[in-house]
Amino acid sequence: MPLFLRAKKLDFTSDSSPPIVVLREEEGAIFGIQLGDMVELFVGGQKIIARAFFSTRKVNRGQVGLFRETWFHKKESIKNGDLVEIHELSRPPSIQAIKKKLLGKHLNYSEIHSIIRDLVDHRLSHVDVTYFVASSFVKEYTDQELYYLTKAIAETGEQVRFPAKIVCDKHSVGGLAGNRTTMIIVPIVACTGLTIPKTSSRAITSPTGTADTMEVLAPVSFGVQRIKQIVKKTKACLVWGGSLELAPADDEIIHVSRPISLEPFTKMIVSIIAKKVAMGITHLVIDIPYGPTTKVPHRSQAEWVAKKFRFLGRKFGIKMRILMTDSRESVGRGIGPALEARDVLRVLQQKEWRPKDLEDKSIRLAGIIFELTGIAKRGTGSSLARDILLSGKAWKKMQEIIRAQGGKALIDSEDVTLAAKRYRVHAGIQGIVRKVDNHVINDIARILGAPYDKRGGIFLNKRIGDRCRVGDRLFTLYASNAERIKLALDALQRVHIYTVR
Amino acid sequence: MPLFLRAKKLDFTSDSSPPIVVLREEEGAIFGIQLGDMVELFVGGQKIIARAFFSTRKVNRGQVGLFRETWFHKKESIKNGDLVEIHELSRPPSIQAIKKKLLGKHLNYSEIHSIIRDLVDHRLSHVDVTYFVASSFVKEYTDQELYYLTKAIAETGEQVRFPAKIVCDKHSVGGLAGNRTTMIIVPIVACTGLTIPKTSSRAITSPTGTADTMEVLAPVSFGVQRIKQIVKKTKACLVWGGSLELAPADDEIIHVSRPISLEPFTKMIVSIIAKKVAMGITHLVIDIPYGPTTKVPHRSQAEWVAKKFRFLGRKFGIKMRILMTDSRESVGRGIGPALEARDVLRVLQQKEWRPKDLEDKSIRLAGIIFELTGIAKRGTGSSLARDILLSGKAWKKMQEIIRAQGGKALIDSEDVTLAAKRYRVHAGIQGIVRKVDNHVINDIARILGAPYDKRGGIFLNKRIGDRCRVGDRLFTLYASNAERIKLALDALQRVHIYTVR
Repeated sequence: MPLFLRAKKLDFTSDSSPPIVVLREEEGAIFGIQLGDMVELFVGGQKIIARAFFSTRKVNRGQVGLFRETWFHKKESIKNGDLVEIHELSRPPSIQAIKKKLLGKHLNYSEIHSIIRDLVDHRLSHVDVTYFVASSFVKEYTDQELYYLTKAIAETGEQVRFPAKIVCDKHSVGGLAGNRTTMIIVPIVACTGLTIPKTSSRAITSPTGTADTMEVLAPVSFGVQRIKQIVKKTKACLVWGGSLELAPADDEIIHVSRPISLEPFTKMIVSIIAKKVAMGITHLVIDIPYGPTTKVPHRSQAEWVAKKFRFLGRKFGIKMRILMTDSRESVGRGIGPALEARDVLRVLQQKEWRPKDLEDKSIRLAGIIFELTGIAKRGTGSSLARDILLSGKAWKKMQEIIRAQGGKALIDSEDVTLAAKRYRVHAGIQGIVRKVDNHVINDIARILGAPYDKRGGIFLNKRIGDRCRVGDRLFTLYASNAERIKLALDALQRVHIYTVR
Repeated sequence: MPLFLRAKKLDFTSDSSPPIVVLREEEGAIFGIQLGDMVELFVGGQKIIARAFFSTRKVNRGQVGLFRETWFHKKESIKNGDLVEIHELSRPPSIQAIKKKLLGKHLNYSEIHSIIRDLVDHRLSHVDVTYFVASSFVKEYTDQELYYLTKAIAETGEQVRFPAKIVCDKHSVGGLAGNRTTMIIVPIVACTGLTIPKTSSRAITSPTGTADTMEVLAPVSFGVQRIKQIVKKTKACLVWGGSLELAPADDEIIHVSRPISLEPFTKMIVSIIAKKVAMGITHLVIDIPYGPTTKVPHRSQAEWVAKKFRFLGRKFGIKMRILMTDSRESVGRGIGPALEARDVLRVLQQKEWRPKDLEDKSIRLAGIIFELTGIAKRGTGSSLARDILLSGKAWKKMQEIIRAQGGKALIDSEDVTLAAKRYRVHAGIQGIVRKVDNHVINDIARILGAPYDKRGGIFLNKRIGDRCRVGDRLFTLYASNAERIKLALDALQRVHIYTVR
């Protein structure tokens, strides 16, 4: 039975989706509506799905308060006093599927699809989605279920298709500081005429994502049509995946997974492949760095992950190569958007002092793409990639991409603006660098402002195996204000980037 | 690392606990704070635990918006522009315990206690609590874990103790319409000098709870001290348990369990016993009505539930008797607070037309309490209870209780005010009443306004086995306005209270 209340427009915005409406708790309770529940409103011929919030101050009995997002952009204007019909959003049938999984049963495609569909349509609350995520602990997903899940997540979002037989891509499972190979691989690959429409993420808990680093050189947020134009012009793009509605279910799932920081590898695998399927990728190289301070700590886990990737690749007809690398330290010298962009430019512009590890890893991955797509014969991919890089063609291609995305292309690596406040840290003891703690690097870079302050970060002077004398420069901190430098130094009293012995 | 922002007082109240603070999303993101996350604020020498909410309109960069509940009642006044130090509420160690359970391991007492402690202290979000509830599906709780959980839930709330060796109580697991035996049993038991401090719930999804029905006759919301005074004076009380802070963890758990409407019996058992432990109950009679439309559908389930109750009873040293009754229809004739109160008064006042089923069940349960506590010999409890009822002493005791709680005691059953609009429904066919659908009774009574409109509800004229002729009165609908009667009649086109064949 609906609840009938009178509209009261509130000048308050939550900017959240779904929008917020405000009821008196006792009126909500009549229909079993609790704080945060989803409701369906009919007002002025419109249907609005919203989240219920309680207040006894802003609404009187008989009123429902509407946050600005529910009425401001509506053509049919909603007036104070309009009759609003409110339905408790009937629990969608997908709740039954979630229960089924929670009770230890396996799900078929239609059940999994119904959950993902309802999740994307905001018919499931955070609590419902949490039950869904938690249900995977009751009974592990079978490979078949993983396939269903990936398919449903891919299909319920934007589908992007490019007019090319081969659409290739490279993906790193991440967790390693630096590691900005993408911005080097993409121009190398595009030079051969292959289509490589690369979407990347922004940093969430790490100091920078590829999208943040690319944004130092050019805008990265575009809709599907603009991305298609950029790719048509240059064969490539380096854009932020979040500006497309690729696999939107994934965002919701991540949202409820973070508080408990349980990221099962299956969730990561599903998320990556769903986005590749949505982008119409046909050939994919996956980089799985493993090591004690990365996302995948052990080789055996990297192999388990690789097996699942390959299974999904076969199911979706994506040709795949997987590179597993023992990774004990960051790749490149800079950590933070601007410092990483400088590393990338140094490689593309072939500066003498470029980070060779970043160059080598990029060449290796680009070479695998060449062999996978048949551009190069087995064993010759890397040398093709190296030739393209050395010839300056990759830098030329990168300039095309930067220009197509609206950036200024003629930047020299040494002209990248870094934060004004700098602090050099020197060695107090001598020995050999034995370990680098990737977690500490990430934490310190965040304290220094990365990724929101693009110019903040760390430049690392030493690598594992380097000899270290008292007074040698270890690393340099960059931040926009002295307070952040101080905070980072305070933290460095307790934790250490390098282990020297 | 903390985030430093300037306070901005907002004239907006959520009335929610914990209170709400408003950040700009991009500033929250620096510290990984997402919508709904818990944060810790230090401002003006105070520490506030709050839930983060996002807005780009109400706060500028560098500001944190404080909802009214955070600043209005503070003695130390918070001023606009005050420096606020914000910490992401570090994930409490209990998160590790939740993960452990989610991964299929068993928990010890200190782990379970840490979860419940953090839950009560608002250090866990709804999403965290959902993981905790969901974790019970990964691996069922052992009896020992159930004991730990009950103990932790009881201990993290108010502890009430009465100066009596025997503190008795009666509990019905509910789900059966009517069934207001409590208000008859309590005065009967108190007549013998036994202490019976009865706390009851209000209706949530059912049309009325004992607290709602009692409220027709007297106030029911009191603090611990007042309750102790009432019990000292009369040996009994009939109050709303929600006004005490008994087992507060339970409310949070219920909140996240409702959307998926999975109420495992274990959760119900733990909740009931935790509250009894918190009230210092020593002797307890539990009524488990089972039947196709009650909370416990089958006898075998009732027995499983009884076994768990007995286990916990032994662990906490509570003497216990359990009555399992095959319950195919409601007990009493009225459904809805006022109609049920009238039934109760008719029994206490021994009116000729009193509902005999309600009387008999009350006598039986009171008799079991008498035998359990040693007031009566085995086999003689019921006759003692009946004597007390017939003598009018129980009604006298009830008047004492009503007066002690601040109600007017001299009400005659026939003077209970019912809703003004009434509609009588008559039989269209003849036969025998074969079935009564308890779910439909509950739904229709809610449509008629119960429990918020105390005067609305249903009076049932027929019981299972009754002969029914065309034109016989089946039931009467009571509501405060004609619209609700119409809504109920619309619903009754699709669903039926009685099955006549």
